[in-house]
Amino acid sequence: MENSLLAYKNREVMITGGLGFIGSHLARKLVSLGARVTIVDSLIPEYGGNMRNVKDLKEKLQINISDVRDMFSMKFLIKGKDFLFNLAGQTSHMDSMSDPFTDLEINCKAQLSILEMCRNYNPGVRIVYASTRQIYGKPEYLPIDEKHHLHPVDVNGINKMAGEWYHILYNNVYGISASALRLTNIYGPGMRIKDARQTFLGVWIKSLIEGNPIDVWGGEQLRDFNFVDDVVDAILLTGTEEKAAGKIYNLGGERTVSLKELAQMCIAAYGKGEYRIIPFPADRKKIDIGDYYADYKSINQETGWYPKVSLEQGINTTIHYFQENFSFYL
Amino acid sequence: MENSLLAYKNREVMITGGLGFIGSHLARKLVSLGARVTIVDSLIPEYGGNMRNVKDLKEKLQINISDVRDMFSMKFLIKGKDFLFNLAGQTSHMDSMSDPFTDLEINCKAQLSILEMCRNYNPGVRIVYASTRQIYGKPEYLPIDEKHHLHPVDVNGINKMAGEWYHILYNNVYGISASALRLTNIYGPGMRIKDARQTFLGVWIKSLIEGNPIDVWGGEQLRDFNFVDDVVDAILLTGTEEKAAGKIYNLGGERTVSLKELAQMCIAAYGKGEYRIIPFPADRKKIDIGDYYADYKSINQETGWYPKVSLEQGINTTIHYFQENFSFYL
Repeated sequence: MENSLLAYKNREVMITGGLGFIGSHLARKLVSLGARVTIVDSLIPEYGGNMRNVKDLKEKLQINISDVRDMFSMKFLIKGKDFLFNLAGQTSHMDSMSDPFTDLEINCKAQLSILEMCRNYNPGVRIVYASTRQIYGKPEYLPIDEKHHLHPVDVNGINKMAGEWYHILYNNVYGISASALRLTNIYGPGMRIKDARQTFLGVWIKSLIEGNPIDVWGGEQLRDFNFVDDVVDAILLTGTEEKAAGKIYNLGGERTVSLKELAQMCIAAYGKGEYRIIPFPADRKKIDIGDYYADYKSINQETGWYPKVSLEQGINTTIHYFQENFSFYL
Repeated sequence: MENSLLAYKNREVMITGGLGFIGSHLARKLVSLGARVTIVDSLIPEYGGNMRNVKDLKEKLQINISDVRDMFSMKFLIKGKDFLFNLAGQTSHMDSMSDPFTDLEINCKAQLSILEMCRNYNPGVRIVYASTRQIYGKPEYLPIDEKHHLHPVDVNGINKMAGEWYHILYNNVYGISASALRLTNIYGPGMRIKDARQTFLGVWIKSLIEGNPIDVWGGEQLRDFNFVDDVVDAILLTGTEEKAAGKIYNLGGERTVSLKELAQMCIAAYGKGEYRIIPFPADRKKIDIGDYYADYKSINQETGWYPKVSLEQGINTTIHYFQENFSFYL
């Protein structure tokens, strides 16, 4: 499986959202594979970009601070790239509801604009787009495969659904090779912990390290998780697989876990701490999706990908990282 | 079934796209039912608005020329309305591909903005949104019911899909009562005939009256059609049905017909003319959806709606109208 990653050696790769949690891990791996990496990131404080994520990489890649909404910088930057890993996005449910227009600008308009720039200036580029399991909404059955209906439950989900489809459309109509990965909950070193804009798990880790109890809403809901290194593998394998053009794949975890169990695992990894169960707030209850976990058979069959890092191992690594680097993520 | 339409008497009704083909017929019916109607239309030349469509109505309703992208006019106009029939949209496949951003502004951003204005200034309004069967893409089975996957094949389809989901979301999260109708091919007096921006049938009628042969692409594809009066009925019945809140319904025709057969019917109705079969152009072939016809059982069961006007009768009425009013639609 790793052999196909040799394809990245000496290739020009652009990562939008490259200073973010996933983007920076992807950049590190690509640098180690010998790729010439350009990171594009807006460093908007509410989003995931953080210079700390690339402190070991600054001499080894290009960092271009700009916004995917800036069509002119995208036009310049996309030229000559072999791969585009398109990870930039607004990810917060709450922000998408309080300011739906900004979510639309980033998750729809900027995506269309990036694709138009590819069509006009670099139609041979290979694109992998980071979509999300959020667009499935409340599961009709479990585990969810890619044939499951899409029933997004917030503005962010609707816009991400459109953003994903733009990519597939440009693949189908204009032959710009694009794939989409519907990511599930992702965690690891460098994840956003200062608030719940990416995942609730980030806030849990912050509470733990600050000595506060972890607030678990509900607690019995089942979820699946991917350690960030596994997500990086999925992105890179998809990027080199010709069969993946025009395809949408779920990622999924190596196991499912209840939120309560996950809280217990975090506490065990940290060595101390406590959690408390909080009843679901009324305004959240309306958009609660209950249990969720994915069927990732499709990407497994077509690229060989599967999640390799166990939840215990991943949680340990993550908590250890934040113990060392806590102040850079507040 | 008509009894429920008495609910519109003396009620305040706003119709976006009200000078367009469907909007103007809807306005006429509402005026006859005793509603106080405000038409909102941008009169953008490439879209469906045409003052000729309301020549008999000007004294009986309010006409406000403005654009759904103009948030401030929407904010003012939505206040105090009991019903919003939200029909304004960019409908052209070709325009959505050549200028995806304008399609996004109208079919996504303006829809979000209208819904935000409802949420802030008139959360009790009842909304019916005009969606489209285009978002299904190429059928996986026939007839297509509402459980069919959405696989839009152009930018317009993706944006209309998002626009529909914003309405359902605002219903589910904020309790703003909204329904969406996925319209199939619609025809009747006042349809756009000067180009194919609404339907190919419009162009056929123009060719016929100008003495040119009708160009039929392919010819064997099956389609269903609704006469505009049936669509107006569906919109009005949906607007008064409480069970319809948060629902999406297909409309569909009373029969299916091949395009070749339809061309023959048009020629029979006009009394003369001819058609020629044109092979599908290569750039269109990629997005050709083959046969399409809908299952409209869901709206039938919940509102009693069914299409009453036969295709022969509807085509006759339509062609007769354009014989009398041709010059106003060129």
